[in-house]
Amino acid sequence: MKEIPYKIYLEENEMPKAWYNLRADMINKPAPLLNPGTHEPMKAEELAPVFCEELIKQELDNDTAYFPIPEEIYNFYKMYRPSPLVRAYCLEKELGTPAHIYYKFEGNNTSGSHKLNSAIAQAYYAKMQGLKGVTTETGAGQWGTALSMACSYFKLDCKVFMVKVSYEQKPFRREVMRTYGASVTPSPSMTTQIGQKILEAHPGTTGSLGCAISEAVEVATSTPGYRYVLGSVLNQVLLHQSIIGLETEAALKKYDIKPDIIVGCAGGGSNLGGLISPFMRDKIKGDLDCRIIAVEPASCPSFTRGKYAYDFCDTGMVCPLAKMYTLGSNFIPAPNHAGGLRYHGMSSILSQLYDDGLMEAIAVPQTQVFEAAERFARVEGILPAPESSHAIKVAIDEALKCKETGEAKNIVFGLTGTGYFDMVAYEKFHDGLMDDYIPTDAELEASFAQLPPV
Amino acid sequence: MKEIPYKIYLEENEMPKAWYNLRADMINKPAPLLNPGTHEPMKAEELAPVFCEELIKQELDNDTAYFPIPEEIYNFYKMYRPSPLVRAYCLEKELGTPAHIYYKFEGNNTSGSHKLNSAIAQAYYAKMQGLKGVTTETGAGQWGTALSMACSYFKLDCKVFMVKVSYEQKPFRREVMRTYGASVTPSPSMTTQIGQKILEAHPGTTGSLGCAISEAVEVATSTPGYRYVLGSVLNQVLLHQSIIGLETEAALKKYDIKPDIIVGCAGGGSNLGGLISPFMRDKIKGDLDCRIIAVEPASCPSFTRGKYAYDFCDTGMVCPLAKMYTLGSNFIPAPNHAGGLRYHGMSSILSQLYDDGLMEAIAVPQTQVFEAAERFARVEGILPAPESSHAIKVAIDEALKCKETGEAKNIVFGLTGTGYFDMVAYEKFHDGLMDDYIPTDAELEASFAQLPPV
Repeated sequence: MKEIPYKIYLEENEMPKAWYNLRADMINKPAPLLNPGTHEPMKAEELAPVFCEELIKQELDNDTAYFPIPEEIYNFYKMYRPSPLVRAYCLEKELGTPAHIYYKFEGNNTSGSHKLNSAIAQAYYAKMQGLKGVTTETGAGQWGTALSMACSYFKLDCKVFMVKVSYEQKPFRREVMRTYGASVTPSPSMTTQIGQKILEAHPGTTGSLGCAISEAVEVATSTPGYRYVLGSVLNQVLLHQSIIGLETEAALKKYDIKPDIIVGCAGGGSNLGGLISPFMRDKIKGDLDCRIIAVEPASCPSFTRGKYAYDFCDTGMVCPLAKMYTLGSNFIPAPNHAGGLRYHGMSSILSQLYDDGLMEAIAVPQTQVFEAAERFARVEGILPAPESSHAIKVAIDEALKCKETGEAKNIVFGLTGTGYFDMVAYEKFHDGLMDDYIPTDAELEASFAQLPPV
Repeated sequence: MKEIPYKIYLEENEMPKAWYNLRADMINKPAPLLNPGTHEPMKAEELAPVFCEELIKQELDNDTAYFPIPEEIYNFYKMYRPSPLVRAYCLEKELGTPAHIYYKFEGNNTSGSHKLNSAIAQAYYAKMQGLKGVTTETGAGQWGTALSMACSYFKLDCKVFMVKVSYEQKPFRREVMRTYGASVTPSPSMTTQIGQKILEAHPGTTGSLGCAISEAVEVATSTPGYRYVLGSVLNQVLLHQSIIGLETEAALKKYDIKPDIIVGCAGGGSNLGGLISPFMRDKIKGDLDCRIIAVEPASCPSFTRGKYAYDFCDTGMVCPLAKMYTLGSNFIPAPNHAGGLRYHGMSSILSQLYDDGLMEAIAVPQTQVFEAAERFARVEGILPAPESSHAIKVAIDEALKCKETGEAKNIVFGLTGTGYFDMVAYEKFHDGLMDDYIPTDAELEASFAQLPPV
């Protein structure tokens, strides 16, 4: 057997040449987006004022298995990809586990996360369509940073609506976006009608992803030459993120490794959906016996406590309806929640797979997530993002189970990004000021009561 | 000719197995450290209360060309090395230059810079000696972060004295060190005698590297089981950093590339000294015709306006005397200087090479450095540290000269780290609040007047 290196790098020419569309191999396809007025499936022409044309095609295509990666995107990928698949030798030793732990590390680029994989694709298609610019929202700031970088590369204007609480707590994130030439507006703002409306109803609000989406969509649809782009949840985003899974598959194959457990954090589902895509295909076909685990924060438990139902993607209810595991579009996680992954819903693809019993989900409280993060950082070097640390927590738990049973399972998890801009959260954790707020059943029931009657 | 990839990665088994000691091949050896009392060369036993034993051997050895890298250090290196040598295709296109630009990127680890290469070695030797812990100083925080990571890995205690102005301006750096279990004290502090003395003489001082070194040395020499470690300037540090140059050499050789110009930023000289080591060897032997350029900030111009003389390494004058290009141990760069590289002196090895005419040096004002940084970030993705951006500035200038002459020179520069913790400086730059203070001749003369009479 070949010795497995600490980092399995692929050569540039081993990088996948096409994205993989898992929908083509799903038995039960994800439910279509619905027009919020008619409750009929959205047609391409209805989506055209909001999204770029090519991206709409990708969004609606449940049949084409492979989409070739355009050369310009491929060349950009080469600046930071293929990303390493790391064998966590030091973590294994620290845990004393017979398990073999691997993580796909997506943090080695300035946006600090996997978000860049889809940002560059979306910016490219906007450029090809001859657009002037794009609008978007960002919460923790990873997506906004990634999109700023991508737009700077293609010389597109980029307008980012940043959830107000993050805008104020993360001035450095904002400054990185500015370095890449983006304009950043705290949301809700007075620059949009929906923002004004939200501020009138909730004067002191610190914002939410749902609000920021509504504002970004309003600006995109009311400004000539602009479209809206989104960093997660959508089918097109999972398509672009399939590069994570395809590279992981290629790297594992080089060393004849078959994963027994795959773990990923899940907010909107972009990382997890990308990471698992080729493995889920094999699992659906009966070629791979593998557990797939989504990890979400206990404060925003879409999979584990949400409803599988049609819901709005945004607070302003201007977006199409998506069928997904959701906590209700008005649900806002407790402000003391530091770990990202704050979105109320979940990718329709992952929701369907979860409903079909092909995936598991676990919700974890944030202090345990930060404990796992620090433990990981001290032996593996990398300072993980709080989001990614949800996956670390469960990977460690599974490795410790292997210690009890003596099994040498192969555990693969997605390390989606770095935590350099999350030091306020780490500080709270170090100072013992972090707590574990979990929504009550009554809170969730109240939120579910507002689901649209579809 | 083989197509050159965007990133030339070496395999783990191509990583150098030994550090290279350039002193072994220097015609004029660097001047020895002197005892500040007797002005006689420091003996190993005199250094033993301050430094680890093995590191003293490395410090004083001008003859051994190769030091094998111990296995434990090698395994740690494997977590983040070999680092990529990147062909800056996008920057070349942006500049429209026929030059081929390469950069050795050392920022892909949590410390965010090359400093980790020496930190892990120094922590290892401290551990092997059975010590409880180490003390050090840090300015911008890169070295302190790197040492915290290294000490956490070997379960050593780590006491960091952080220049007060940085401690206050960079709370996140401090928090990263805390994540790795280090204690961080703002310097000057009341916890040391020298700190008390400095605070008495200069009550409002925001500190300097020289002060922080004095405090760290005092604690190391007065606490049983502790020694002091330093992240730059010393011969041992350049030895460990030779891995940067050796990997660069190996990567270039794979594609039959010979560098015409090598550029590196220079504060204390650790990165530049490491990057150039094998190339300088070939240059000394007449086997390579190559310009080697040190870039320093115009606000702290040790090479270009300093004196080549024996000087103290610290403000408290407790350290040995080193012969180096120096601005005087009392010199403190203007507080508005944001770009790092604030040390008054320079590696003795590089000082000797510069004095021998084997290297050039250029001083650049900080606004031009940030302009180059932003230009680079927008096309190459990576957000560079202000320190590293000094090298970017001169690499771009040289590439633009090639554009005028039509020459396809190979320009290699060291991209030592990332700027995630420097967003305050970027913000100043974006807001037009950055200026270019340059010390006057009179200021420098006053500082030179205090050089020790050796």
